Amino acid sequence: MRLDVVTIFPEYLDPLNVSLVGKARARGQLNVHVHDLRAWTYDRHSTVDDTPYGGGPGMVMKTEPWGDALDSALADGYETGSHGPALIVPTPSGRPFTQALAVELSERPWLIFTPARYEGIDRRVIDEYATRMPVYEVSIGDYVLAGGEAAVLVVTEAVARLLPGVLGNAESHRDDSFAPGAMANLLEGPVYTKPPEWRGRDIPDVLLSGHHGKIARWRRDEALRRTTANRPDLIERCDPKAFDKKDREMLSILGWSPDPEGEPHGRFWRRTEDVGD
Amino acid sequence: MRLDVVTIFPEYLDPLNVSLVGKARARGQLNVHVHDLRAWTYDRHSTVDDTPYGGGPGMVMKTEPWGDALDSALADGYETGSHGPALIVPTPSGRPFTQALAVELSERPWLIFTPARYEGIDRRVIDEYATRMPVYEVSIGDYVLAGGEAAVLVVTEAVARLLPGVLGNAESHRDDSFAPGAMANLLEGPVYTKPPEWRGRDIPDVLLSGHHGKIARWRRDEALRRTTANRPDLIERCDPKAFDKKDREMLSILGWSPDPEGEPHGRFWRRTEDVGD
Repeated sequence: MRLDVVTIFPEYLDPLNVSLVGKARARGQLNVHVHDLRAWTYDRHSTVDDTPYGGGPGMVMKTEPWGDALDSALADGYETGSHGPALIVPTPSGRPFTQALAVELSERPWLIFTPARYEGIDRRVIDEYATRMPVYEVSIGDYVLAGGEAAVLVVTEAVARLLPGVLGNAESHRDDSFAPGAMANLLEGPVYTKPPEWRGRDIPDVLLSGHHGKIARWRRDEALRRTTANRPDLIERCDPKAFDKKDREMLSILGWSPDPEGEPHGRFWRRTEDVGD
Repeated sequence: MRLDVVTIFPEYLDPLNVSLVGKARARGQLNVHVHDLRAWTYDRHSTVDDTPYGGGPGMVMKTEPWGDALDSALADGYETGSHGPALIVPTPSGRPFTQALAVELSERPWLIFTPARYEGIDRRVIDEYATRMPVYEVSIGDYVLAGGEAAVLVVTEAVARLLPGVLGNAESHRDDSFAPGAMANLLEGPVYTKPPEWRGRDIPDVLLSGHHGKIARWRRDEALRRTTANRPDLIERCDPKAFDKKDREMLSILGWSPDPEGEPHGRFWRRTEDVGD
């Protein structure tokens, strides 16, 4: 996979040399090119922004440097045999970046990132490249960053770990939060390792029992406990067919019931008597 | 504000020297300490992880290095006059990191981050420090990273830009997506700057009209257009009192109506005839 990043802060992308992404680069699984946007400015101050049309606070990133930088990155990629580019535009106005989207992006051969600063990039840049390639405007969450570079690190890491051969242990996707399977839509519960006692704190007895069924049940109960506490929205979205009899008992203890109105899918809801009114 | 980060990849945090966070450090508004977790291992291999109790794939980060590293960071902070530490644990099992939480964290004097790798940190570490300080287990989004370091960069940047005097232009919070005010719960629409024509593409005439009312209305329509397309959940959550007559006309054109069942709050829903069945 080829990755291009155009940015006014190339050094912000240095973590792409570290850890999993850095190793994938070293092994040739990722071919990363970071471009300094200011290399495509031609004035003495290397200006990349100007005031917004229509007035208002903040500055808007100009069309010309972005157009020239993207054309150059595209020309270089095509010359060296890359194909099928897609533009990834990190922006708080984008659609949510999710694990499903990480999987989709991991199947593309070439991603070009345009992390912006200030109020964002002149819209015509996105409109122009959207005529030539898929454009993904993505938001990594409901918070405001100073620029898109941190989002590039997030998306790159989420995508890179899904590439074949990048994670050492093929099994370690299996229990990921948000992965398909038994734990789909549930958060993972607590984990423990040696020593069995630390600062007067023990580990749960069940984990020493050697009883695989009981351990699996305990883990699932803890996953339900954490998910209801931190992400009630995930429980509400869960297909109730995914809950077995013991799940339902645990959910009831935690204050959740199937929709009393007999809503078609019978999804679970937090009982209102438990949250007050 | 003091920030401590304990990690096995200290170099991943190099972006904390760049841009807005780097400038805030240089001005003394942020006091950042990055600690290498492996400095608190005492075996030849600097081991920080071990197999999980109860079996299963992946590795769990051990209690002792984390406990020793956190004790050392705390001692150093207290000695140099810091107070009121809070522990920020990035984990996909946490509660969602939002702009509201960024505001809450920006009001604390001292944040200590524990970005983990593998399957996470032995739970007893979190339980231990939770007896001494607030612990925020946070997830920056519904995707899986290789480790928590990218999440630290995200949280740090979202928090740092809210500190007094860090953003150059005091006005630039005003129109932030997710900020309180007229655009609360709406995504920002497209922005444009000079030149008025680029590669045959013009800017919308209204932005050259000089008519402030029409420009504000156009921006609001574009915000509604983008929000309904990318984040229908934000429209559904909107208090309908926030929509004026023109908003309602635009929402109707976009295929949205007040709940026909006369649901108490009259929130807006996408009309089902427009999405098929």
